[in-house]
Amino acid sequence: MTVRAAEEEADARARACLTAVAPPGDLWLGELLAEYGAARVWAELVAGRPAPSAPHEEGAPNGPEEASRLERRWARWSARAGRVDPDGLLSDSAEAGIRFVAPGDPEWPGRLESLDLPGGRRSHGLWVRGRGDLRHLCLRSVALVGARAATPYGEHVAAELAYGLAERSVVVVSGGAYGIDGAAHRAAQAAGNTVVVLACGLDVDYPRGHAGLFAEVARRGVLVSERPVRSTPRAPDFLIRNRLIAALTPGTVVVEAGRRSGALNTAAHAAELNRALMAVPGPVTSALSVGCHVLLRDWQAMCVTCADDVVAQVVPLGEEGAGPPRLDAALDADTRRVLDSVPRKGAGTATIAARSEGTLEGTMRALGMLAAAGLVERCSTGWRTPR
Amino acid sequence: MTVRAAEEEADARARACLTAVAPPGDLWLGELLAEYGAARVWAELVAGRPAPSAPHEEGAPNGPEEASRLERRWARWSARAGRVDPDGLLSDSAEAGIRFVAPGDPEWPGRLESLDLPGGRRSHGLWVRGRGDLRHLCLRSVALVGARAATPYGEHVAAELAYGLAERSVVVVSGGAYGIDGAAHRAAQAAGNTVVVLACGLDVDYPRGHAGLFAEVARRGVLVSERPVRSTPRAPDFLIRNRLIAALTPGTVVVEAGRRSGALNTAAHAAELNRALMAVPGPVTSALSVGCHVLLRDWQAMCVTCADDVVAQVVPLGEEGAGPPRLDAALDADTRRVLDSVPRKGAGTATIAARSEGTLEGTMRALGMLAAAGLVERCSTGWRTPR
Repeated sequence: MTVRAAEEEADARARACLTAVAPPGDLWLGELLAEYGAARVWAELVAGRPAPSAPHEEGAPNGPEEASRLERRWARWSARAGRVDPDGLLSDSAEAGIRFVAPGDPEWPGRLESLDLPGGRRSHGLWVRGRGDLRHLCLRSVALVGARAATPYGEHVAAELAYGLAERSVVVVSGGAYGIDGAAHRAAQAAGNTVVVLACGLDVDYPRGHAGLFAEVARRGVLVSERPVRSTPRAPDFLIRNRLIAALTPGTVVVEAGRRSGALNTAAHAAELNRALMAVPGPVTSALSVGCHVLLRDWQAMCVTCADDVVAQVVPLGEEGAGPPRLDAALDADTRRVLDSVPRKGAGTATIAARSEGTLEGTMRALGMLAAAGLVERCSTGWRTPR
Repeated sequence: MTVRAAEEEADARARACLTAVAPPGDLWLGELLAEYGAARVWAELVAGRPAPSAPHEEGAPNGPEEASRLERRWARWSARAGRVDPDGLLSDSAEAGIRFVAPGDPEWPGRLESLDLPGGRRSHGLWVRGRGDLRHLCLRSVALVGARAATPYGEHVAAELAYGLAERSVVVVSGGAYGIDGAAHRAAQAAGNTVVVLACGLDVDYPRGHAGLFAEVARRGVLVSERPVRSTPRAPDFLIRNRLIAALTPGTVVVEAGRRSGALNTAAHAAELNRALMAVPGPVTSALSVGCHVLLRDWQAMCVTCADDVVAQVVPLGEEGAGPPRLDAALDADTRRVLDSVPRKGAGTATIAARSEGTLEGTMRALGMLAAAGLVERCSTGWRTPR
């Protein structure tokens, strides 16, 4: 392993651990990571040392009150960091089929760079589960979001749109809730792939009734979260998760939303990020369409009624029907070595790591990427090359 | 009667007769009227003389084919003019409670001037039935249009909007068809006034089932048409009528419309005339909302879901709730004399004409305007001043 690769791995490992101590999208943490690197920040936290720079937050007044608020935040993270077992976190994740993707990794979605602007609440790293490749799935994608307590009309329209988009090789990105999210994923599964963005750990299966759907998505698509295994969802997590749904896609369609629906929060993020904002109209007599009509009336959302309308908004002219680009990637030496170590009839991760002379984590991440590209696949004994 | 008043009356009388020979909105007739005046044009037609100017039509190629086409048109009008009995036309109309309103009359709606632009198919005169004053009713108005074969959803929304608009002192303008038109008028009647724009003579009651509704509208609002008594509607009349609905109002709302609905023709006129164009969304699964969604998607129509949304588009800021301005008109001498000749207990039109020393037609028109202003009203013996 080169020095650079080792550094990158240490950075990714530190970022993975940081997901267990700091909330997703924390602005100050983003600043610290940009300035000192994740490995350094993590080391200081674990050692219980003070923050590497005078605490201040982008855009926030830098008074003594603010400083002491950030000091308390650092102390809280530090206390949590002391309880994190990095190897355990990574091996538990690997066992649950969950890999960690850090900024700069081949699977990191380029669109997330739009969150790097001030106030953009950048993502510090993503947990990913499933055989799809997150970056490639998002290239030609659209977010379909809407109410949890959707009407039959809303679920019908979500399913029609999602199926139509999947048929047109557009990947559907949504949350994991009942209602519009579930209807969209289920229909898209029938003709293509989906990306589920969760506000909890990817082993948590929240809501419970969607465990089967999530397992199905993982077979060809991916589930994504900024929170580590075993994290149960808390209310603010859904809002911070919504920015990710908007950021991963070139456009967001709100299928059905009440006046205060969380889908409008996703819509606001899409508008902020200059993504196409679309809304499906519905009966003006339906409380669950009020949010969509507000988007049409006051937010200049585009009125969309079918998959073709959506494709016209998000797919550049001339690219219709092209399908997502394939990963016939120029693999780096480490990943190539891992691929060469995967036998036809299959082997466990530890065996492959030993054969490729890599670390367990590095091998896990490489296998995840290879699986996403369809170059290796899961089998009863671990991993094998596809028939 | 002054020379000027006599000239105006002759012009109005000629225009009334012209509605019986030429189609509404005829571009060439509009040119001839502007250049030679209606009395001269009518006289030439009746006398069977050639058109007063070399036949050519605004914007049309002036080749020999075009010229002979216009000559044939003139000959057709001339033949019809020979069969028109002007006194009979006016007295039949008066008997049916129908007055003629010519450009420049106090009741002529100012907004129709927007049709005077080239290609605008200006109106040559309007037949009006009912006690409302057309000009004043249109000042604070909105067109509500939509499909004849409306769904229960569409009729419900039309009624809700119309009632809400009437409550806010906004006059509803629409056609006279079943479906959206009828639902809108009926609901608006409950709280305010409406203007029915018909494509047939105002005594024809088309469709038959709306005879009662039209009688009800006439009690406080008005019915309008460019076609004389006894004219039955022909297909092209509906399209030319639609421009009038759009032109009379500061904005048009399409409540429900299929892909090829006539309401989209009204919407196109509204857009051409720079009027506010609004559409009510509906279920994307409904064929009767497809037209509305096309307007929202491709025509930049404003998405409206309630009367307040509509008022925000058509009523200038600061004028909300002001109500239509009242006619405390500075009456001209002739009209004042007619008003002074109307007894408390009522008298017939001929009696009033004799007492005011005016012509029968002039008195009829004056009475119509006075009724519109609420200064006289119908009674069993003819006309009286209100209690």
